[in-house]
Amino acid sequence: MKSNDKPLAITMGDASGVGPEILFHSLDADAIPSDSIVFGDASILKTGCDRLGIEVPINVLDSLNDTKEDHLNLWDCGCLTASDLTPGVLNEAAGDAAHRYVTLATQAALRGEVSAVVTLPMNKEATQRSHPTFTGHTELLAELCDVDQVVMMLATDEVAVSHVSTHVSLREAIERLTPSRLKRTIELTDSALKRFITQPRIGVCGLNPHAGESGMFGSEERDVIEPVIDELRKRDIGVSGPYPADTVFRQAIELDRFDALICMYHDQGHAPMKLFAFDRAVNVTLGLPIIRTSVDHGTAFDIAWKGVARIDSLAHAIRYAEKMLSSPSRN
Amino acid sequence: MKSNDKPLAITMGDASGVGPEILFHSLDADAIPSDSIVFGDASILKTGCDRLGIEVPINVLDSLNDTKEDHLNLWDCGCLTASDLTPGVLNEAAGDAAHRYVTLATQAALRGEVSAVVTLPMNKEATQRSHPTFTGHTELLAELCDVDQVVMMLATDEVAVSHVSTHVSLREAIERLTPSRLKRTIELTDSALKRFITQPRIGVCGLNPHAGESGMFGSEERDVIEPVIDELRKRDIGVSGPYPADTVFRQAIELDRFDALICMYHDQGHAPMKLFAFDRAVNVTLGLPIIRTSVDHGTAFDIAWKGVARIDSLAHAIRYAEKMLSSPSRN
Repeated sequence: MKSNDKPLAITMGDASGVGPEILFHSLDADAIPSDSIVFGDASILKTGCDRLGIEVPINVLDSLNDTKEDHLNLWDCGCLTASDLTPGVLNEAAGDAAHRYVTLATQAALRGEVSAVVTLPMNKEATQRSHPTFTGHTELLAELCDVDQVVMMLATDEVAVSHVSTHVSLREAIERLTPSRLKRTIELTDSALKRFITQPRIGVCGLNPHAGESGMFGSEERDVIEPVIDELRKRDIGVSGPYPADTVFRQAIELDRFDALICMYHDQGHAPMKLFAFDRAVNVTLGLPIIRTSVDHGTAFDIAWKGVARIDSLAHAIRYAEKMLSSPSRN
Repeated sequence: MKSNDKPLAITMGDASGVGPEILFHSLDADAIPSDSIVFGDASILKTGCDRLGIEVPINVLDSLNDTKEDHLNLWDCGCLTASDLTPGVLNEAAGDAAHRYVTLATQAALRGEVSAVVTLPMNKEATQRSHPTFTGHTELLAELCDVDQVVMMLATDEVAVSHVSTHVSLREAIERLTPSRLKRTIELTDSALKRFITQPRIGVCGLNPHAGESGMFGSEERDVIEPVIDELRKRDIGVSGPYPADTVFRQAIELDRFDALICMYHDQGHAPMKLFAFDRAVNVTLGLPIIRTSVDHGTAFDIAWKGVARIDSLAHAIRYAEKMLSSPSRN
């Protein structure tokens, strides 16, 4: 793992979307650590400033060590020219470039040259024009890091929520609830939180309503979830459950009984979290050899380059990456 | 359907639980309409007042028309004696009596003598001692009303959430997502809301993450949900969707885009609602020939008869029943 004396990498995201302007506003609001390095395109950022009528001091780096305070420190990936700035319009070159920023930032992280990768949004369709098999940031990162299984965690300061599966049908999600997947999801969540909490308190949701009500509404709690919890508790992981998914979020968020919850499928975790922390939840990818956090919004072509995109989500993503780079202090 | 010139019926619930004292405190707080009629036991309520050291004017009725202002108007079901008051202790007689209160109140509603039934909690285990097949209030009401399929709606002033299925395993919930069940759930929700909203705006959740993402994550949206929505729209029901379940709650609650949401399974609706409106959600049973609302808590034996039970949930349940008895005024 990387230490926190190295700069953060922030990828610029799709040039047609809100990524670049969020960088400008975040720098202006001091929401970007001064030695962070943006992986993007100088031509877009410079043309973009002119377009928005703002001045942003951009420091194009020759080496990752030459960062300057109060500058947008840029690793210029050199993919695009000024004419590639097509605000809000799907652009194959921009999609390809966004892919490249992530690739270069991830490779730098794997070499230990940056401490973590924080990503601004890509546009799936734009990137698929040049990379037909591209399905998303997370899968690209897994491929670049040569990792089979990753876990998606949505994190706020109150609670982190990890998912046994995400982008599969509900039927398939039930099939994917296996002891090995569940175990790995809990272990990765425990490891991630142990970066800043000595003994994380992890609650596991049931799959079925009322966590199965003692086997009356389904058997997965008894057959899969309980044995995994029992096994991990013996290994000094502070995990408990299964708890009914309809009340455990309040226990975590309002009553502070858990640091993390493990959800059995996408909507079980996403629905409460997007209601509770719509623009605050940070998307964290667990299971990679690097730290990666992401904003929790898309390219928002409809409002791109209008100067109205909010910086909150990037600020949260940066702060959470920094938190994961800190040492245990709580408990 | 009953008109609102008849009194509300409120069932006392299990005598060992928090029901009776909630009645006392609600009367004291003017949270009970003055002509409401409690279906319960005089012996318990009178002994209970002595026990709590409070004075509550109880008017035991000879006829449902003899209600008095500023009194707890009681239809004495005569099931229990003073010695049956066993606070916080499971009691077969109390369980049987609670069953009787609901039966008598429901029969009065079916005869048109009361306008609606608002229920305080029963204790499943206590009632099962004398009624082994008892599984819950809702099933009992369906049986008393001779109805096959009912729908559970969780309602707040901001949004009402109906469920295609509730207390079944997640696997079974997927099987129960049939066109006929979904249609009936939407129709019943539309009818219920049309009691007080001229044209309810109903949003339907997808079953799968991202509402299936155009068929990539499951086919139920295309095969079941979309055809039902199309059919009902032609019949002038203001229904739309399917929407991703992880973002639609915010659209309903914070952005006021929907009056009701239709959820495909228990936790899809319950998890966001219990986080958002933990002690405010009213449980409404749709599909009965009578109006029935319920508190959204249990008998709470651990705090029963200590004078600490909160009245909020009963107040919300009463208010929602009154809302359903009102005429359309909005839109």
